[in-house]
Amino acid sequence: MIGTTMRIHWLFAALLVPGMALAAEGMWTLDNLPKAKMQAEYGFTPSEGWIKRTMLGSARIAGGCSASFVSKDGLVMTNHHCASECLDQMSTAKKNLIKDGFLAKGREQELICPEIELNRLEQITDVTTEVKNATAGLDGAAFKNAQNAVKAKLTSACVGNDKETVRCDVVDLYHGGLYQVYKYHRFQDTRLVWAPEKAAAFFGGDPDNFNFPRYDLDITLLRAYEGGKPAKIENYFPFSKSGAQEGEMVFVTGQPGSTQRQLTVSQLTTLRDLTLVNNLIRLAEMRGVLEQYSKNSPEAARNAEHALFGVENAYKAFRGRLSALQDPALMKQKQDEETALRQFVAKQPALQAKVGGAWDAIAAAQQAYRQIEAPYGLIEGGRGFSSKYSSYARALVRGAEERAKPSGERLPEYADAKLPELEQELFSTAPVYPEYEKVMLSLSLTKLREMLGTDDPFVKQVLGKQSPEQLSDALIDHTKLGDPAVRKALWQGGKEAILKSDDPFIKQELALDPAARAIRARYEKEVDSVQQKNSELIAQARFAEQGTSAYPDATFTLRLSYGEVKGWQEGDKKIPPFTTIGGAFERDTGADPFALPASWHAAKSKLNLAQRYNLATTNDIIGGNSGSPMINRNGEIVGLIFDGNIHSLGGAFWFDPRDNRSIAVHSGAILETLGKVYGGADLVKEIQAH
Amino acid sequence: MIGTTMRIHWLFAALLVPGMALAAEGMWTLDNLPKAKMQAEYGFTPSEGWIKRTMLGSARIAGGCSASFVSKDGLVMTNHHCASECLDQMSTAKKNLIKDGFLAKGREQELICPEIELNRLEQITDVTTEVKNATAGLDGAAFKNAQNAVKAKLTSACVGNDKETVRCDVVDLYHGGLYQVYKYHRFQDTRLVWAPEKAAAFFGGDPDNFNFPRYDLDITLLRAYEGGKPAKIENYFPFSKSGAQEGEMVFVTGQPGSTQRQLTVSQLTTLRDLTLVNNLIRLAEMRGVLEQYSKNSPEAARNAEHALFGVENAYKAFRGRLSALQDPALMKQKQDEETALRQFVAKQPALQAKVGGAWDAIAAAQQAYRQIEAPYGLIEGGRGFSSKYSSYARALVRGAEERAKPSGERLPEYADAKLPELEQELFSTAPVYPEYEKVMLSLSLTKLREMLGTDDPFVKQVLGKQSPEQLSDALIDHTKLGDPAVRKALWQGGKEAILKSDDPFIKQELALDPAARAIRARYEKEVDSVQQKNSELIAQARFAEQGTSAYPDATFTLRLSYGEVKGWQEGDKKIPPFTTIGGAFERDTGADPFALPASWHAAKSKLNLAQRYNLATTNDIIGGNSGSPMINRNGEIVGLIFDGNIHSLGGAFWFDPRDNRSIAVHSGAILETLGKVYGGADLVKEIQAH
Repeated sequence: MIGTTMRIHWLFAALLVPGMALAAEGMWTLDNLPKAKMQAEYGFTPSEGWIKRTMLGSARIAGGCSASFVSKDGLVMTNHHCASECLDQMSTAKKNLIKDGFLAKGREQELICPEIELNRLEQITDVTTEVKNATAGLDGAAFKNAQNAVKAKLTSACVGNDKETVRCDVVDLYHGGLYQVYKYHRFQDTRLVWAPEKAAAFFGGDPDNFNFPRYDLDITLLRAYEGGKPAKIENYFPFSKSGAQEGEMVFVTGQPGSTQRQLTVSQLTTLRDLTLVNNLIRLAEMRGVLEQYSKNSPEAARNAEHALFGVENAYKAFRGRLSALQDPALMKQKQDEETALRQFVAKQPALQAKVGGAWDAIAAAQQAYRQIEAPYGLIEGGRGFSSKYSSYARALVRGAEERAKPSGERLPEYADAKLPELEQELFSTAPVYPEYEKVMLSLSLTKLREMLGTDDPFVKQVLGKQSPEQLSDALIDHTKLGDPAVRKALWQGGKEAILKSDDPFIKQELALDPAARAIRARYEKEVDSVQQKNSELIAQARFAEQGTSAYPDATFTLRLSYGEVKGWQEGDKKIPPFTTIGGAFERDTGADPFALPASWHAAKSKLNLAQRYNLATTNDIIGGNSGSPMINRNGEIVGLIFDGNIHSLGGAFWFDPRDNRSIAVHSGAILETLGKVYGGADLVKEIQAH
Repeated sequence: MIGTTMRIHWLFAALLVPGMALAAEGMWTLDNLPKAKMQAEYGFTPSEGWIKRTMLGSARIAGGCSASFVSKDGLVMTNHHCASECLDQMSTAKKNLIKDGFLAKGREQELICPEIELNRLEQITDVTTEVKNATAGLDGAAFKNAQNAVKAKLTSACVGNDKETVRCDVVDLYHGGLYQVYKYHRFQDTRLVWAPEKAAAFFGGDPDNFNFPRYDLDITLLRAYEGGKPAKIENYFPFSKSGAQEGEMVFVTGQPGSTQRQLTVSQLTTLRDLTLVNNLIRLAEMRGVLEQYSKNSPEAARNAEHALFGVENAYKAFRGRLSALQDPALMKQKQDEETALRQFVAKQPALQAKVGGAWDAIAAAQQAYRQIEAPYGLIEGGRGFSSKYSSYARALVRGAEERAKPSGERLPEYADAKLPELEQELFSTAPVYPEYEKVMLSLSLTKLREMLGTDDPFVKQVLGKQSPEQLSDALIDHTKLGDPAVRKALWQGGKEAILKSDDPFIKQELALDPAARAIRARYEKEVDSVQQKNSELIAQARFAEQGTSAYPDATFTLRLSYGEVKGWQEGDKKIPPFTTIGGAFERDTGADPFALPASWHAAKSKLNLAQRYNLATTNDIIGGNSGSPMINRNGEIVGLIFDGNIHSLGGAFWFDPRDNRSIAVHSGAILETLGKVYGGADLVKEIQAH
């Protein structure tokens, strides 16, 4: 990589090096777009109206994806892999919506997704002063408690009495540089309208995941409802059938989940040596178990499918991130940037006195983290208890305990503003598969024993004289937490109902919760609060050096990226930015995951094989951006983001404009196939009615 | 860790620090024992007779373990986990020797192990000059070919016409510092005499593996035969029923497989960032697959058991090694040592001219290795083709090609001196389980596609339009290589028979062999020969600095370690060096792997529960030492090495006398249980007859 990654330097370098791409780096908050830079590079300055329409047309799936409104009647576009949990939950042993796809013939056939919450950002309010004042002079648990309290207060005030339709989150930008309240419109009634077969949506499967050229119809259409009727949407994105041309400026508006571009070198080292390696090893074993379990029967495969996709997707992403962090060039650059910022600080005695110790404090927190990484992840993080029942029991037991307190004194995930999303999940009618859960729970209990040791007191408390398999069977054979009515009764019954329950998962959670809270408290005191407090100081130093001309690390909040349609050079090979529908037929081998579904073969003669199918652009995106609309200057949809190329995986840590590419479904291919393969003429009409 | 790891410095530091353990570091070759050091520390100097008897009483299992002769009639003691492949191969769906154990009631019931070759070291001859002269001035492929040729010539000359009973290997010590011919007596008829149940041999299973306190009866007795009769053994070790006391000097004589204590920092970095991480991820997924496959049925579990043990054992060992390499103190020490040696070299112009560039050359080879690690491991290393059939096909196809050449021009694993061991494996009557092989082969083909990419030409050549599962099924359903008679005919038929064969694995191997040879040639040219040549130079520098007062890295050749019976301090806790048979009953939960077998419960009242069972000592050992006898000054067996503690895993890279411990079965516990639990009174008598 040439030059440095500091965005402002990038731009400078880019303008000096002839033939080098203009930098598309940046996941910009909508209240701080780099308008001058956009104008200089592409001759386009977004108007306030353009920005507002873009914000209101964008949506977030609270569980971890992006989406957009695409009709006045609440039609919502996202990725198939973002809605696949709903498809999975609405499937049965006899009707597999993942395999067969789904099309509602009329709105009365649209299926309620039990766990999808949609959010639409409506307002951003700065609360930096309030948050920082609340924690001033505090450390450790006191710092953490004060921050929780002020966040709960701010979000409750923002929500007011409209908790059904309003959601507010305190957002931490620039690692404590700014705190803002993001106010969303909340939609909890979201229904399934159309999804293609997985064989089309995820053609190429794991082997082609994060690859390009690509041939995926990774789309699902949902519809937002309010009051039992399709939501009326004023701001939605019209569709461009022709899409965007090579070199054309395009925008991605969505929620990148998390980047680590502003972490310290010691934090990156922890990620490289500890977090990523341990996660990869954990995921690899889980992958093996799920792959083999899936071979037991089609029903076993169906039950494990959603988890296996998640595991393989995360595995590949983490692999890419580990490679990036193992690249000596990356670490050298991070070290150089850190040294430069520390030198900048050291030259100003007042700043040095305040901020100078922050890097070493964070490095010390890494050492503390290494000591507790295993028990923290296993016991408090739940990795030792991987089952839906355990998650329900945790929410019920802690929820009962926490809701008895004022909102500001609770663990933050049980603050008033968080309860609607939690209740949606807890009361979900989605099925739970006991045999599958036994596999996952016994595996995770085995890892608990392996990583903490047979003679660890907590392990002994959990297992007693039982093996992980015996305990899993005993718990799952006797629990009633698979029944949403039972969960609802326990939730509503509060602490009394919990203490009286004889459900084995509730009893286990009650017995183990003190140990889990203890390791969490230690983590928050020795690691989390130290990182938070000192990151705020480093952010101050950055602001002193750069102002807010830089963008903040991704935080699963709305961001705009601008870039252009563009391929890249892969060694000797030029990768063009478009694939075609015909190319999908050429790649079809007939063997999963390279087998196009029967519907495609049946429709082949009607299809325009030259229609552009997937495209690559220079937009700067990351996981969480899945489902983001790609729009042009006119605010028309030209694509649907669903992936990045393999080089984009290093984007967690830096952005390389030479080969980091986002990947989208072409808007024209959506209309072409929805109409000709799937018989969705009415939907095509609805999308095009504007 | 205190001080440095240079052995001579250790000793110096040890003598200065009051209360610190005398260092037991060192895996010494029997022709270069540190007699003065032994005398100084323990007042014991081994006589030439003692050394010779120790050498001749020791044995090697060519597949990767150590052993010892324990009676004049060829009785051989090793670990259960060293002989478990034989137990597995002699089992059937109806008779599971791993689960039930085995006792031959009389010699006529002793079962031939189809793949165990025993070696007894009889002579060591230095050939450093011959080997170095042969490669002088050469590079890359020429270097490698010349080295192969001289090694083939030396081993053939050593074997002469006695290839049935003589085996000779050229051994590389000090990474090219010395080359020696090790001449062994070869025993290929080895029979199974006694093995306890796995529940006793591997009590505590994977959770307790590499742990201490420990309660394992990890022993199997074999018998070496010659001419169809028990081999007559002049030098064997007598048994000490009372064992050794705490603090008593003890010796381990066996074959440590491989240590990496003398690698350069760049090589250690490759191990840390690339080799270990990739191996752990690979093993973790394989582990998940095997665990889940084992749940399909008892027969599936039996078929996968040997592989699963191997995977879990390697996984835990690699985990420990990765932790060691991620310890900044270790890397700092390695860097300091390297810097000191380079400075020593730099001060002597002649040495500097010759040797000075070696470290950078090795570092460059690491970069070359990173480029080819995946294809090399998958294609030439066979990781993309994990099945017994593939291994047989490789040996048959390459064997036919190579045996047509003079021995010195062959790939070294097909040189004349290597053929007897290869033929033993190839003609083995051990069963092959097609369903199990399909699981492993399809998994490895999936990894081949994943790691090289769907569009890689080699992957396309392998898979065509088939999925990994389809190809595995097609190959395994139609092969006849599971039949040893078919393999023997193909081996004996040579190239003509191979070219005429329509076996799908043979045809696949013929088609893919050119690609495999090409990536091997690249590896040998760019990596292996560079490392070998430059390691020789570094070894010269070390000799110049230290002489041969240091011991060489382990190379699966006979070494002696001396140390003492000793526990260690684990944080606040003192770990005593002995456990008892009674302790095993206390640890028994009734749930696998903590369930003692029925035979133990039946015999409990007869057993001396205070009998010492397992013990910890300061001996410096590593994988490959499994099955080594532990002897006292009188050359009597006091224990049977079967493991190291968790701290011993860092022993691949350095030796920390504070907590690195080897773990053995106490000789008294062997006699106690063999007699009272297993009804092996005749064997007890045979062992004690001296």
